[in-house]
Amino acid sequence: MNAIITLTTDFGLADAYVAAMKGVILDINREATIIDVCHTIAPQNIAQAAFILSTAHQFFPARTIHVVVVDPGVGTERRAIILRTPRFDFVAPDNGVLSGVIEPFLKERLRPAQGQTALPPELEAVSITRPEFWRSPVSPTFHGRDIFAPVAARLSLGAAPEEFGEVIRSITLLPEHRPYQESAGTLVGRIVHIDHFGNLITNFKRGDLPEEPFAVEVSNRFISRLSRTYGEGEGLLALIGSSGYLEIAVKGGSARDFLGAAVGDDVKIKLGKR
Amino acid sequence: MNAIITLTTDFGLADAYVAAMKGVILDINREATIIDVCHTIAPQNIAQAAFILSTAHQFFPARTIHVVVVDPGVGTERRAIILRTPRFDFVAPDNGVLSGVIEPFLKERLRPAQGQTALPPELEAVSITRPEFWRSPVSPTFHGRDIFAPVAARLSLGAAPEEFGEVIRSITLLPEHRPYQESAGTLVGRIVHIDHFGNLITNFKRGDLPEEPFAVEVSNRFISRLSRTYGEGEGLLALIGSSGYLEIAVKGGSARDFLGAAVGDDVKIKLGKR
Amino acid sequence: MNAIITLTTDFGLADAYVAAMKGVILDINREATIIDVCHTIAPQNIAQAAFILSTAHQFFPARTIHVVVVDPGVGTERRAIILRTPRFDFVAPDNGVLSGVIEPFLKERLRPAQGQTALPPELEAVSITRPEFWRSPVSPTFHGRDIFAPVAARLSLGAAPEEFGEVIRSITLLPEHRPYQESAGTLVGRIVHIDHFGNLITNFKRGDLPEEPFAVEVSNRFISRLSRTYGEGEGLLALIGSSGYLEIAVKGGSARDFLGAAVGDDVKIKLGKR
Repeated sequence: MNAIITLTTDFGLADAYVAAMKGVILDINREATIIDVCHTIAPQNIAQAAFILSTAHQFFPARTIHVVVVDPGVGTERRAIILRTPRFDFVAPDNGVLSGVIEPFLKERLRPAQGQTALPPELEAVSITRPEFWRSPVSPTFHGRDIFAPVAARLSLGAAPEEFGEVIRSITLLPEHRPYQESAGTLVGRIVHIDHFGNLITNFKRGDLPEEPFAVEVSNRFISRLSRTYGEGEGLLALIGSSGYLEIAVKGGSARDFLGAAVGDDVKIKLGKR
Repeated sequence: MNAIITLTTDFGLADAYVAAMKGVILDINREATIIDVCHTIAPQNIAQAAFILSTAHQFFPARTIHVVVVDPGVGTERRAIILRTPRFDFVAPDNGVLSGVIEPFLKERLRPAQGQTALPPELEAVSITRPEFWRSPVSPTFHGRDIFAPVAARLSLGAAPEEFGEVIRSITLLPEHRPYQESAGTLVGRIVHIDHFGNLITNFKRGDLPEEPFAVEVSNRFISRLSRTYGEGEGLLALIGSSGYLEIAVKGGSARDFLGAAVGDDVKIKLGKR
Repeated sequence: MNAIITLTTDFGLADAYVAAMKGVILDINREATIIDVCHTIAPQNIAQAAFILSTAHQFFPARTIHVVVVDPGVGTERRAIILRTPRFDFVAPDNGVLSGVIEPFLKERLRPAQGQTALPPELEAVSITRPEFWRSPVSPTFHGRDIFAPVAARLSLGAAPEEFGEVIRSITLLPEHRPYQESAGTLVGRIVHIDHFGNLITNFKRGDLPEEPFAVEVSNRFISRLSRTYGEGEGLLALIGSSGYLEIAVKGGSARDFLGAAVGDDVKIKLGKR
């Protein structure tokens, strides 16, 4: 069956770990279309993988199967899960790596959830426990190849999630860092990702921003207006990026290098003209 | 339809920008075969993208659709275009990135064209202006995902270029750096690309070279004969590389590291024995 | 025909060499599924390519065609070959890059073979000599594009290996570095690969290890027991990795960085409690 399976891992590009997973998938479903989302997640960086996945999974055709293997607890007690949303399936360790996928479904809640969190009603999840669908023997260090890949391949042939284990009603979420109000005129957010161009992607969504005028403060510098594109003005600029988050960029350059900024750094919104 | 779509970008490998484009394409044409040409073009380096594309696009099946997103002017006034050649289609910003594709069609001209240049008669081009084929809303910073990808996908389903906008009769070309004669016995060219192996690829085509004997001068060193393969002789060597250009290489090593050479450096041909 | 062709090269990610090969393959067999195994083999490192291929080729569907282009002798007298095993086909230079594929078939022999070695009876090989299947003219520096890719594509359409040249009965093998007994209580092996996570993969297979207790010595440090997963204990650990080799790892870190280790370094097994 011509299903689409995507792969997001921290396996890098110097080994054949990703290829081994693809071989396993194709050996079960020869017709699968396998697409790489990203394999350069920093080793064991669950938050980065959650962010990357949140910026790409939604553009794929309905019922695409997204496999994520950023799995510092491989071989330990951490669960492996299938998550079914109204539009997609995910196969991943239950370590928070699907947080960015699940958050939009939690949006009505007053406070962000984290840790073991009850699943919203639109979502189903299964703990992958039935070994008859796995490669045998399972390497304790490579569940990507021996569990996630064959499970995803069999899902792509039409198996139901419940065939792979028990239905579960809670899932692990990362702590969500949302901007907060520090004082009357100041909102505090943070850099959640720095992309290949050195653009600083913050956790301010479009709807988090007040009416202009306001200034964006980052690394002791102020940006007094929002630009629309990377090609406007000169030097440091702020705009709403393609995933809907406030971004800091430098025209023709790298904001990371220009500012010496890092993931986790504060970014503030200061109301009023400056 | 089982069309082939290739992607050439400066998006790097650390984000999901490329994957988002692939998702958009597959969501429109599930049967498309998507092939990566290169995603590690230096950020916003239009000339490098033009060179890379010129060394690979021609090997694909007829009517392959080549998408190029190296686009420093994204969201500004620069045009987005479809270029149709007798054999391929291209979807790209009109910023010179297709120069290497167009140059062979200009070959009869006395002087190289640059800037806005009239299209040769074998080529058709369209300015992409009709938003009904785009994703909506369009991010001003990611036309790759919201314009180029859906346009390429719809082209791959059989849409005609004219459905996407107005026919145009000129296109932007980069200045072409051709070797020139500096004095009676000396031709001057330059390094246009340095590949992964550290081989220095020049702008001397086979036909630009005089009859031997001549010496190749680069970084104050002389190479007195052409080799046929990288495995011949010892140390520094010159040969006609796989794209038909004069290359400088080091057997079992990197000419870039050995010579400290960079793109843009002069390479000279000096007639006579040395 | 929907054949699967994999590619393993040292071409890196900064050029379009890999894309040119894919274009050539698709131009001959539009239905081929092309999978990247690895393109970041260190330039001309045949042993690394042999190792990488040995960890991934076996997971693919039967009759997958594996193409390897790590080819320091391109254009010289070295042979290009097709190797047919009971399960797969390989297209590669005859320079030892298929050693890891062939070794399991040699397993009954007393001493490891190297250099020109008679093929075991289960394997067939052909020297690729008939130019009518190649691109023309052949670049002396890019047989990947002009010979290996078209040969693999035509194999994928059902051509028999014998159509491409003469059957040969010997093949080039790299020297195999197997652990040896240095003294009564000491086995000596070596690091054969360091993966993206900095895990040190040795040449001790599970069956090479004595009964516990024993200690693993590496870089003047001792590890006194085998772990099962990367998530166990603290700091330095040893385990049987996913390819069946003894690995040295650091929980949540890089054993390469922690120990300053390199491929080729000794790893010793010392019998008894420590």
